[in-house]
Amino acid sequence: MSAEPRLLANAIRALAMDAVQAANSGHPGMPMGMADVATVLFTEYLKYDPQAPHWHDRDRFVLSAGHGSMLIYALLHLTGYEKPTMEDIRNFRQLNSPCAGHPENFMLPGVEATTGPLGQGFAMAVGMAIAERHLSAVFGDDLVDHRTWALAGDGCLMEGINHEAVGLAGHLKLGRLNVLWDNNKITIDGSTDLSTSEDVLARYRASGWHTVSCDGHDFADIRRAIDEALADPRPSLIDCHTIIGYGAPNKQGTAATHGAALGHDEVAAARDELSWEHDPFDLPGDVVDAWREAGRRGADEHGQWRSRLSASSQGQEFLRRMERRLPEGFSLDGYLSDLIANPQKVATRKASELTLGAINDALPETIGGSADLTGSNNTKTKATRPLTAADYSGRYVYYGIREFGMAAAMNGMALHGGVIPYGGTFLVFSDYCRPAIRLSALQNVRVVYVMTHDSIGLGEDGPTHQPVEHVMSLRMIPNLAVYRPADAVETAECWALSLERQDGPSMLCLTRQNLPQLRTEAGENLSARGAYRLRAAKAARKVVLLATGSEVETAVATADALEAWGVGADVVSMPCWSLFDAQDAAYRADILGGGDALRVSIEAGTTLGWARYTGLDGVNIGLDRFGASAPAEDLFKRFGFTAEAILPQIVAALSQGDQ
Amino acid sequence: MSAEPRLLANAIRALAMDAVQAANSGHPGMPMGMADVATVLFTEYLKYDPQAPHWHDRDRFVLSAGHGSMLIYALLHLTGYEKPTMEDIRNFRQLNSPCAGHPENFMLPGVEATTGPLGQGFAMAVGMAIAERHLSAVFGDDLVDHRTWALAGDGCLMEGINHEAVGLAGHLKLGRLNVLWDNNKITIDGSTDLSTSEDVLARYRASGWHTVSCDGHDFADIRRAIDEALADPRPSLIDCHTIIGYGAPNKQGTAATHGAALGHDEVAAARDELSWEHDPFDLPGDVVDAWREAGRRGADEHGQWRSRLSASSQGQEFLRRMERRLPEGFSLDGYLSDLIANPQKVATRKASELTLGAINDALPETIGGSADLTGSNNTKTKATRPLTAADYSGRYVYYGIREFGMAAAMNGMALHGGVIPYGGTFLVFSDYCRPAIRLSALQNVRVVYVMTHDSIGLGEDGPTHQPVEHVMSLRMIPNLAVYRPADAVETAECWALSLERQDGPSMLCLTRQNLPQLRTEAGENLSARGAYRLRAAKAARKVVLLATGSEVETAVATADALEAWGVGADVVSMPCWSLFDAQDAAYRADILGGGDALRVSIEAGTTLGWARYTGLDGVNIGLDRFGASAPAEDLFKRFGFTAEAILPQIVAALSQGDQ
Repeated sequence: MSAEPRLLANAIRALAMDAVQAANSGHPGMPMGMADVATVLFTEYLKYDPQAPHWHDRDRFVLSAGHGSMLIYALLHLTGYEKPTMEDIRNFRQLNSPCAGHPENFMLPGVEATTGPLGQGFAMAVGMAIAERHLSAVFGDDLVDHRTWALAGDGCLMEGINHEAVGLAGHLKLGRLNVLWDNNKITIDGSTDLSTSEDVLARYRASGWHTVSCDGHDFADIRRAIDEALADPRPSLIDCHTIIGYGAPNKQGTAATHGAALGHDEVAAARDELSWEHDPFDLPGDVVDAWREAGRRGADEHGQWRSRLSASSQGQEFLRRMERRLPEGFSLDGYLSDLIANPQKVATRKASELTLGAINDALPETIGGSADLTGSNNTKTKATRPLTAADYSGRYVYYGIREFGMAAAMNGMALHGGVIPYGGTFLVFSDYCRPAIRLSALQNVRVVYVMTHDSIGLGEDGPTHQPVEHVMSLRMIPNLAVYRPADAVETAECWALSLERQDGPSMLCLTRQNLPQLRTEAGENLSARGAYRLRAAKAARKVVLLATGSEVETAVATADALEAWGVGADVVSMPCWSLFDAQDAAYRADILGGGDALRVSIEAGTTLGWARYTGLDGVNIGLDRFGASAPAEDLFKRFGFTAEAILPQIVAALSQGDQ
Repeated sequence: MSAEPRLLANAIRALAMDAVQAANSGHPGMPMGMADVATVLFTEYLKYDPQAPHWHDRDRFVLSAGHGSMLIYALLHLTGYEKPTMEDIRNFRQLNSPCAGHPENFMLPGVEATTGPLGQGFAMAVGMAIAERHLSAVFGDDLVDHRTWALAGDGCLMEGINHEAVGLAGHLKLGRLNVLWDNNKITIDGSTDLSTSEDVLARYRASGWHTVSCDGHDFADIRRAIDEALADPRPSLIDCHTIIGYGAPNKQGTAATHGAALGHDEVAAARDELSWEHDPFDLPGDVVDAWREAGRRGADEHGQWRSRLSASSQGQEFLRRMERRLPEGFSLDGYLSDLIANPQKVATRKASELTLGAINDALPETIGGSADLTGSNNTKTKATRPLTAADYSGRYVYYGIREFGMAAAMNGMALHGGVIPYGGTFLVFSDYCRPAIRLSALQNVRVVYVMTHDSIGLGEDGPTHQPVEHVMSLRMIPNLAVYRPADAVETAECWALSLERQDGPSMLCLTRQNLPQLRTEAGENLSARGAYRLRAAKAARKVVLLATGSEVETAVATADALEAWGVGADVVSMPCWSLFDAQDAAYRADILGGGDALRVSIEAGTTLGWARYTGLDGVNIGLDRFGASAPAEDLFKRFGFTAEAILPQIVAALSQGDQ
């Protein structure tokens, strides 16, 4: 390399402090502190090709400490990626700039994951490393043989999810995973001494990790540490002793550099300190040339890989999976025909298992798992052997009691590509992994959540285990498709929709208890409409019953009771609100029965939200309190989810409407 | 003691397996495995008085592995608590039995915390231990000098929150905390080898804990380990090697005993194995006598404590705090008068800090904190010195980057009593601690969440940091009071309501950005109504604008614009939905403007939910997508939160209504 590494690193520092200063917002401390380490990684170790950001066998680099986003923007620009341009960097943190406050995977190729919510980048990197080992086991080193790197700060390490991610990576012996820890002893509140006394390295070693320390501002020492990490078969934590805001003479080493612009005076002082004599956003040619040269390091290797891919008999299948295409002709129609021929009265969690039987046989790219509730979530099928350190080709992960770690790992697997991860826990524990569910949605990744025991129907375990607010609150996460199927047919339909959805996550909310099969014909995937008329009124329609999941059965019973009184009632099953909202106005109006019928919602969860369909004059049957511990049938009676309890409320509302 | 400890322990085993068998539901494995350890603890070490379950200086015992609830029910019954009766135990897991599937603090004195969501009991125990040390520092050992015990399983230890709890306890050197780990090497999915390879003890030592191992079925060895733990100044993890389902000859040591009834044959076989010749729920007199004798161990010490309390000059103040009473005459009226006299244009997070200045001076029982966002959440005031290992009398906890651990610790502090915990993070990270927020609500504890940066008003940090669905989804958690105040006056009102609420949690959702003071008089606490008319229409009312928080300002601007067109518009501020819903129908109808006005909601978050007030014909101004990274004012414009953008939508709706 023609330029000194410190000079290259200072280009990062200058861009970081100048962009933050221009925005008067952002985090200069981390990029300035980790610039030296990042320079070594991106100029000497990382396998990538800026001309082909999506090269499937590239190393993955995850900036887990996402607030230091200017680090990755500077690196992508300097190494020759098409984006971000210098203009983009000038517009750091401004509307429509791809240089957003935190790195967003959907805005810039080269940003492997959306990071910022602390700890999750690290945990997604674990998922990427799992996907890499799995695909390497399936397709061989010729096609898949790369590393996963993460850059993490103290925040990432203190978060609870770190424990789950570290435990999972250690257990699965993910030696291709290397984490660079920006050990600067500073958090937002001040010194790490304020809040932690942990021997971090000892903790990592306790989970089967290799650890090594280095001076994060000594290039030779950084190389030594990385070399040691690469040579070790365990996942590695590379402890980089750094000075936050390195180069800002009066503020470095303090929390003042963490999350605010340095100020014009300090920026000027840093220019002096770093002997950086160039104007903001003006980079000297030799520095740019040296960076671009480093950025071309991977081109040859990429070319060789392309040759191997062309020559491989598995090449097309590999590309199919990486490009997220389902196998040609894949369909659950055969399975659905069998269901219609042989109706199943099963819990929808069991229906999901039956469906998965068909899916896992036909889709080799699925990787299932559960957070220690395999038998309850019904997530394992015969086709899926365990994925273990001894056999990465397996397709079932025993995630342990790590809901958040599981969800984040699934995000990482989906981001890596080549696999379709699904995983389960009890729906109530969606709260434990909610931050990762949100990132599934924000990142547009195909992850399927299999959430069982979806209401008081869970029964005896009581209120800590009974979802009340969960289904509705999950519907509010943008871009998350929430399904609550009513029977075995809908369950299969919702699974089909979840798999066909390439660009976003899906959640299946499934019962513990058995449900009758209400659908007697298949053909069209009616769940794709979000809501549909399951049964039309026989007498003149005065009521439209809107229900989901297990309460569709209750709605049918209620309709029967109404019809016996001569009151016509439609039954509408609404497995997916967001899909229904996307239908045209005429369809929606037709299903909801126009303005003349009384609309009644029945769902064993919070009523808040249902007025969206029932209006203020409708009736909302729901549960606006915590549940209780008792057998499920007792609870449904206790909380009024029976036709007997619902009928008088409808009659009262109808007679009020007549007045 | 007249009976052998094994015999006493077998009484627990018999009750556990028989109750689970009777319910045909539950978890016999843990109680049977930990019966010996629990017997030693409750007959020889634990300080308690079954005649006075609320004795303020009792040891706290938290069954973190809450699924093993029969253990605590058996212990409470055997040691002589009034509840549960044998009849209650016979009705284990049935509707209205206090012996619920998981232990509920609101159903049985002696159950110190609701547990079941794994990892949280342990983390609440950390909070209890913090409260104990704090109160001991304030009131002296004469009044406060007890230990906190937790019983945890592998699930509790694998959850991410365990890392946060362990780190916090180690950092604060909570030597009075002792955790009994039921190390049985079994989880639901099977052997722990399936999912973990961690050296747990090494991890604990890395965070400053003392660790000791014992044979959990050898009484002398259990005593040796507990004695060693008591002698060590650090928090202790007591690693108890146990056999899950100990005594069930064919199933012990396997996952089959974890979460299902053993079955009649195996229960019979266990009776043989344990030489337990008594019928289900029939306990031999000598065993009961020995247990009751053990239960009377603490009576003398309790009596001595009562004497010390009577003699103490601080006794009344201590009781006031423990009984959750605010100081006589406490009020924020003076502070509010000052606000009216000197209106503040500040962010509501700053308004919260100003209010806290008044609160913390007047209420010595508050303990504040933040998950490493002290300067952003504005949670620290001058009155609150740090609470540290060197000085437990401080009133501010630097929780570190541990949102979930903070929230659970606050639950534990509130359950312990004597303190009012409040703590902050960004509202978007309520997702990180949502499981603990839910337990605040279920447990009816006074915890105040100070959640700042409550919308896209957060600005440049972008979508990962901008709440969208959060406010609405939090409103759905039963028993959680969610406040979104519009200005400095409402912020103080909401704080007053949060403190006055003895039996449930509150959440303040606060802005990053400055807001004008809209309220010009105080007097009545209008926020107590949940919603109120901030400004009445001048022209004939055709529109009612419903808004919360920062959008109330937008509503006022919109009303001005409408009035300029001759359209009368009320502005209603709705700081707390649940309080508004609790008002009588006449008040609600009056505020919502009856049926003749167009209702328009304005809130910078999901619209799902607002139809509850606006009906289907109203207008909902909100945000049903993720935000973006840009300065706040650009975002409010981009997403239509300006009078200019809102006005045409209202005009269109009005003209549609006229047709």
